[in-house]
Amino acid sequence: MSAVSEVAIRRARRDDIGAIVAMLADDPLGGARERIEDPLPQSYYTAFETLQRDPNIFLVVAEDGEGAVVGCLQLCILPGLSSQGASRGLIEDVRVAKHCRSRGIGEQMVQWAVAEARANGCKLVELLTHHTRVDAQRFYERLGFARSHVGLTLRF
Amino acid sequence: MSAVSEVAIRRARRDDIGAIVAMLADDPLGGARERIEDPLPQSYYTAFETLQRDPNIFLVVAEDGEGAVVGCLQLCILPGLSSQGASRGLIEDVRVAKHCRSRGIGEQMVQWAVAEARANGCKLVELLTHHTRVDAQRFYERLGFARSHVGLTLRF
Repeated sequence: MSAVSEVAIRRARRDDIGAIVAMLADDPLGGARERIEDPLPQSYYTAFETLQRDPNIFLVVAEDGEGAVVGCLQLCILPGLSSQGASRGLIEDVRVAKHCRSRGIGEQMVQWAVAEARANGCKLVELLTHHTRVDAQRFYERLGFARSHVGLTLRF
Repeated sequence: MSAVSEVAIRRARRDDIGAIVAMLADDPLGGARERIEDPLPQSYYTAFETLQRDPNIFLVVAEDGEGAVVGCLQLCILPGLSSQGASRGLIEDVRVAKHCRSRGIGEQMVQWAVAEARANGCKLVELLTHHTRVDAQRFYERLGFARSHVGLTLRF
């Protein structure tokens, strides 16, 4: 691993949307799903406003020392009855900018999310990662996650 | 498969909590996680109040012709930026009472959740199922779900 880059994790703002969508699109799976245009499709802004209003959703970015957005992650706090009424944290859309990988940025973001989930009373953090993302699976196992589940999806 | 039992899917009420927790506990994995006492631990009621206040969370039960609760499922509608700002539906805590299995009740509940997710603008429904629940995985594949992801969990 190269030297670790310390990043600041903060809530995403409207003017981060372009950087976040660029990271989502710069990916073998995401590339086919996103639309990079200038201006970006309105649907991204609408979704941002919706998730920003939801107190259980934390869309955060990692900012490097120069203020550039180099990573993103979304954490949802989900109440539920199982496990004696424990909330769960769901981590989604974890991305690190290509030129900044292997510097511990993903780890800092995921550790932030785990700590935030615990602070919000969660007893469990869960996530789905595509079966082809073998490096991601190894990364999460190194952070203590167990490959305990199968993730099933139905796309419309 | 035995004859199909038609069930009504409706939002869970406070007086359904006992029946739901009994189904969550009546399971090799859930049995170790739940606490069946009379009265039930307050944490279940607190969680119910929290999820009932969240407009993006639908905890539903399946009710048979005699008004008995024979199944449960939780659907969360999760906004996000990826896939052009599409919301996702997350299905959790699907259970059918043991004496009512193989009658199509799980399928009616999951089809309800998929339809509700679509009606709420989702382009994707996702779920995690424990790797040992081979029958559940086959069930979801039969309903059109793909085993596309690995589900990772971190329990505190």
